[in-house]
Amino acid sequence: MKRIFEVDPWKVTSHIFNPEDKRLQESMTAIGNDYMGIRGNFEEGYSADGLQGTYLAGVWFPDKTRVGWWKNGYPEYFGKSLNAPSFINVEITVNGERVDLAKSKFSDFYLSLDMHQGLLTRSYVYEGKDVKVKFEFNRFLSNKIKEAALIDIKATVLEGSAKIKFNAKIDSNVVNEDSNYDEHFWQPLGEDGEGRTVQVITKPNPYEGVPQFTVLLKQGLKANGEKIEGKVTTTTGVLSETVEVELNENDTYELEKDVVVVTSRDVEPAEQAKKATDLLDAVQSESFVDNLADHTAIWEKRWEQSDIVIAGDEAAQQGIRFNILQLFMTYYGEDRRLNVGPKGFTGEKYGGATYWDTEAYIVPMYLAVTKPEVTKALLEYRHEQLPGAYHNAKQQGLKGALFPMVTFNGIECHNEWEITFEEIHRNADIPFAIYQYTNYTGDDSYVKDEGMDVLVGTARFWADRVHFSKRKGKYMIHGVTGPNEYENNVNNNWFTNTMARWLIGYTLERLPKATAEAQKRVAVTDEEKAKWQDIVDNMYLPEDKELGIFVQHDTFLDKDLRPVSEIEDQRPINQNWSWDKILRSPFIKQADVLQGIYFLNDHYTMEQKEKNFDFYEPMTVHESSLSPCIHSILAAELGKKEKAVELYERTARLDLDNYNNDTVDGLHITSMSGSWLAIVQGFAGMRYDADHLKFNPFVPDKWNHYSFKLNYRGRLIEVYADHKEIKVSLLKGADLEIIVKGDKVQLKEGETQCLKA
Amino acid sequence: MKRIFEVDPWKVTSHIFNPEDKRLQESMTAIGNDYMGIRGNFEEGYSADGLQGTYLAGVWFPDKTRVGWWKNGYPEYFGKSLNAPSFINVEITVNGERVDLAKSKFSDFYLSLDMHQGLLTRSYVYEGKDVKVKFEFNRFLSNKIKEAALIDIKATVLEGSAKIKFNAKIDSNVVNEDSNYDEHFWQPLGEDGEGRTVQVITKPNPYEGVPQFTVLLKQGLKANGEKIEGKVTTTTGVLSETVEVELNENDTYELEKDVVVVTSRDVEPAEQAKKATDLLDAVQSESFVDNLADHTAIWEKRWEQSDIVIAGDEAAQQGIRFNILQLFMTYYGEDRRLNVGPKGFTGEKYGGATYWDTEAYIVPMYLAVTKPEVTKALLEYRHEQLPGAYHNAKQQGLKGALFPMVTFNGIECHNEWEITFEEIHRNADIPFAIYQYTNYTGDDSYVKDEGMDVLVGTARFWADRVHFSKRKGKYMIHGVTGPNEYENNVNNNWFTNTMARWLIGYTLERLPKATAEAQKRVAVTDEEKAKWQDIVDNMYLPEDKELGIFVQHDTFLDKDLRPVSEIEDQRPINQNWSWDKILRSPFIKQADVLQGIYFLNDHYTMEQKEKNFDFYEPMTVHESSLSPCIHSILAAELGKKEKAVELYERTARLDLDNYNNDTVDGLHITSMSGSWLAIVQGFAGMRYDADHLKFNPFVPDKWNHYSFKLNYRGRLIEVYADHKEIKVSLLKGADLEIIVKGDKVQLKEGETQCLKA
Repeated sequence: MKRIFEVDPWKVTSHIFNPEDKRLQESMTAIGNDYMGIRGNFEEGYSADGLQGTYLAGVWFPDKTRVGWWKNGYPEYFGKSLNAPSFINVEITVNGERVDLAKSKFSDFYLSLDMHQGLLTRSYVYEGKDVKVKFEFNRFLSNKIKEAALIDIKATVLEGSAKIKFNAKIDSNVVNEDSNYDEHFWQPLGEDGEGRTVQVITKPNPYEGVPQFTVLLKQGLKANGEKIEGKVTTTTGVLSETVEVELNENDTYELEKDVVVVTSRDVEPAEQAKKATDLLDAVQSESFVDNLADHTAIWEKRWEQSDIVIAGDEAAQQGIRFNILQLFMTYYGEDRRLNVGPKGFTGEKYGGATYWDTEAYIVPMYLAVTKPEVTKALLEYRHEQLPGAYHNAKQQGLKGALFPMVTFNGIECHNEWEITFEEIHRNADIPFAIYQYTNYTGDDSYVKDEGMDVLVGTARFWADRVHFSKRKGKYMIHGVTGPNEYENNVNNNWFTNTMARWLIGYTLERLPKATAEAQKRVAVTDEEKAKWQDIVDNMYLPEDKELGIFVQHDTFLDKDLRPVSEIEDQRPINQNWSWDKILRSPFIKQADVLQGIYFLNDHYTMEQKEKNFDFYEPMTVHESSLSPCIHSILAAELGKKEKAVELYERTARLDLDNYNNDTVDGLHITSMSGSWLAIVQGFAGMRYDADHLKFNPFVPDKWNHYSFKLNYRGRLIEVYADHKEIKVSLLKGADLEIIVKGDKVQLKEGETQCLKA
Repeated sequence: MKRIFEVDPWKVTSHIFNPEDKRLQESMTAIGNDYMGIRGNFEEGYSADGLQGTYLAGVWFPDKTRVGWWKNGYPEYFGKSLNAPSFINVEITVNGERVDLAKSKFSDFYLSLDMHQGLLTRSYVYEGKDVKVKFEFNRFLSNKIKEAALIDIKATVLEGSAKIKFNAKIDSNVVNEDSNYDEHFWQPLGEDGEGRTVQVITKPNPYEGVPQFTVLLKQGLKANGEKIEGKVTTTTGVLSETVEVELNENDTYELEKDVVVVTSRDVEPAEQAKKATDLLDAVQSESFVDNLADHTAIWEKRWEQSDIVIAGDEAAQQGIRFNILQLFMTYYGEDRRLNVGPKGFTGEKYGGATYWDTEAYIVPMYLAVTKPEVTKALLEYRHEQLPGAYHNAKQQGLKGALFPMVTFNGIECHNEWEITFEEIHRNADIPFAIYQYTNYTGDDSYVKDEGMDVLVGTARFWADRVHFSKRKGKYMIHGVTGPNEYENNVNNNWFTNTMARWLIGYTLERLPKATAEAQKRVAVTDEEKAKWQDIVDNMYLPEDKELGIFVQHDTFLDKDLRPVSEIEDQRPINQNWSWDKILRSPFIKQADVLQGIYFLNDHYTMEQKEKNFDFYEPMTVHESSLSPCIHSILAAELGKKEKAVELYERTARLDLDNYNNDTVDGLHITSMSGSWLAIVQGFAGMRYDADHLKFNPFVPDKWNHYSFKLNYRGRLIEVYADHKEIKVSLLKGADLEIIVKGDKVQLKEGETQCLKA
């Protein structure tokens, strides 16, 4: 755990610059606008260690799979989010000396991410020979014109006189840090000095259907609010525009750099220069302040709908807002071709593609905080990728459709056998979102039609993937990796078997209600249905009756079972232990059996929940960001309030406090919804079925109160809880019956129902 | 299965050249002399697909580990046998046209490896425009001067007249086929045109203790028996020496190219040119024919001691001789720094380093066919690498010493977690050779001294690697890969548990008899001994009493158990199935439980052997070259003669008949001893303990008889068996009591004992 930013309800601020925390600071001050994003790199450059990172949504490269020992079935390539040409650069020299916080003397450092506005601010006083200059930087990626980045730099001479040279650059000579052999993935197409553009294309690839992306970047400058033109030079893939000013003591100079980035995802390469000109004109026709106001207005609307207010605990408040901010900066459902990568725009790790995280963690939150169309778009994203899922199953010699562990286009692009071939629980978790969507929204049009393609495709996969063990007279699933990735290639992972069984059962249940057209399309035979029913009836689900628990997998109980408390000094084990030691240990990376109990919450008794929680939680190291929220929700349900709060804090401040010592690589975007879930499903006990929305709230001891809003079936509902009362208000929409603490409560528009806590 | 060479007792011959079999042909016609080796590449070059391969024993490169997802504990590099500069090249043009069997017209192709001499011969008639020239090539790598390669090329004009240009080259612009990004591993140090040398060095590496190797190659030519000098040109890393002749019909011209290769393993770089000159002078002072005679004389001695004669089955005869030849061309114990790589000098796959194959397969044969010093050198090789083994265990956070899966220097250099971290049975199989050596030779000086370092180091590893399962009250070994590499990360692999228990038990047994110095060195405490004994007494060994079998690992019996006969059309499964399907299947790559029964043969009853054989053999696909010999030996012991012979043939002709469709990559060198074992331990039933050598021979139905010789405790024994009688002769050495078919037989020098078959 390491906290390098100050606690503040609406800001992520630091007054300290510590070079050894540079990467961590960069991750935490990354900004995005669902179209693109940038790590908290410094405009003026930085010559010591850091991770330069600029990412454009949906722009990627298929990097040939290179492994020492090929396994049949491996995907041909790993898809990686490309580090895009860098465009924030404004190198600065003062009296001939380069400003570089790795080398220069400076004071009064200040860095702050304003969460209300999605605005990054930084300032310091540069102390050169006989001169002191205060530099202030402001930047944001516009919510209004998605292609636009706006950077404002103010220089104020505090002492002496300064000849300042600004060199505003677009630089496509970038690599991904994990690229093999420092390979460049971008090829320059040309630089237009006069037009201030650089155009690049991703290098060719041999894979069918994988596009080469063309990107054009264009910059424009303003000085003290007026457009100016600097002196332009170009080299291959690089554009430099320099402006020099001479300032005396107390003089201020303000340079604004506006950049527009268009990609071939939206604009044909030949049209990009024209489009960029139009967009840049639109940006530059307004002042920085006005552009920021337009941008902030959009944030205000979002906060209005989705903010969670926590009184009495600023660290918790900051945590939840940071998570909501970063999620919305990554994805707000405006481009249906996109999805939510585990690191969003904050780092290159994990390739930035789509994982099962989306359905398991993002969907249940977005159902409540965005319009139903957003979640439906996420479901349809998978429906559109069904051909890839069929391809993936075929690669493994199996029937049906297998959704990928990692993908940009539906084709699996991860290449570790224990994950690619084995972490197949995803193939039930992903369709589970259909069930969640249908239950929450009450809209069954999707499950009746396209959803049925998904359900039947995945059910067919499972029906082929199970095998019948003659010895046990049961269907089994061997050779899987459960959500606990600290064990690989296990047999009969309870979670996987449970979810596979659920998927087949749900498919059988929904099939007769599907549209005639869908039924015809999926063409499930009676023989298939009988086989599926047999699997549902005879799936092996490991259980230990004596302990009263579901068993994580066949031989889990033979391990040297010990609580995490015995190895506190060795955590995180993924950084301190060999993989061999991790695999053999009883320590659980993330919710596994408990993930199943969380998903199928109404299938289990409180006693079952408690016994399993008490057995597994003490062995769980929560070294996946996806873990503590699930445990927190179950702890809340079981009345283990302290535990619930502890795990909430770990979720909500995972990155802010660098709990797992890996935030240097980027933020844990997909797990950020976990904080929201921990409050809404955990503390407030929100559940739902086809008929009712339910709450069972409590308030953590150290909080005074909390409140949040929900979109639910065309209504806007606000829930408030303090230590004395619970208030539920129907802010908008038709009358509704909900259940609070087991009792039915009638809501009417504009009215608030108060209940004793 | 594909047989491209003719059956012949002493030759591997083909009259056909089929471009699609080029790589296969190259593997089968590889030659070596324990110092270096070359695949059967063509001297004149070949422009279509092939695998150019020249290898120098002990010359390797540490190639940085590159994996998508790093696991803690991975070695920093993978050691690869380098494809060395190519020196056989003699490009030929006839009347200005390049001779190239990929493009030229030719007839009367002939290719033959003479196993008696280790001589490769090739000839064909080149048919150009108005000209026919017969080319005959002979080459061998000298057994007498190990650094020398001799190539003789005879051109005879059959029709027309020919202006023939020979270009004898040394070419260091080579890559390993599996090198990443076509990297070159060699850096030229210089070419000396006058001296006809090229000197190269392996590129720098950052790994402590891993040398850069310097190699100097020098060539000299002779024409019709007299030294000549051609016209020399050099380019970076390449030397070319051209000779032109004009020949009329019926003229013959003979060009001899002699090459000497010296490496920094033996000669300091600055001394290499001088040394090469001396060696080349020695080579060239004799004629090709005389050099060949010296070389052949050494082969004759070897064959005299180790040939197995099979009458009545030429295919079987050819098989065993091919195996013995290739083994001896790879390793004959003359350089104690070396070991036996899985592909020897015939291909680059597996990195060419040392595997557990050496101890499990090579040692038991070499004990009998070479002097005891050779096997002892193999044991000492591991003793010298103990520091690396301690390093490997530490990498995994474990105590003691862990011998590596793959190595050149004791440090593990393989980087798949399921092998590196898990295929640890090697750490008992390797010390098992100490037991075999001691029992066979009767020499216990090694086990009492250096051997004890190995036993205690490995015992300490095992004692830390087991864990105690409270539930079962037993010691267990989780997370291993057994010899059956078609299953990974299994728990309680019977073979691994059995061998680990054996190792600890044997260490405890031998420890009190060790030298005082060794006991002091290893310093085993009483507490340790007590713990070790507890492990021996309480090791969990999975068994199914009902089936009467040892269980391969905990959940093996839950699989969809089926015989291989149901999937004959899908073999080899490693080429036709996804890795997922292979892992989950019941099909066994190589002897696993049966390997344990083979090793600890006297621990089990015939009934146990039979039940296990009958259970596991039908599920074994033998897709490892190490598998069929073990099954053959057990089948022989169980009187399943037909099965024993079938599996022998598969072993002995694995490469000759390309059984596993992978001989293109190179020969299966380490498993070649399996054919010898299948005859001697299988058909002849040879066993031994501390007191006696034992036989229990039978003769396969289709054979008339077979005979072989053994070195045993200073004696030379010959065993002969036909369908009527068994004859055992003590050719040399002191009187000896042996056991044949359960009866004691007294052997006297110079006498033969005849027994009824």
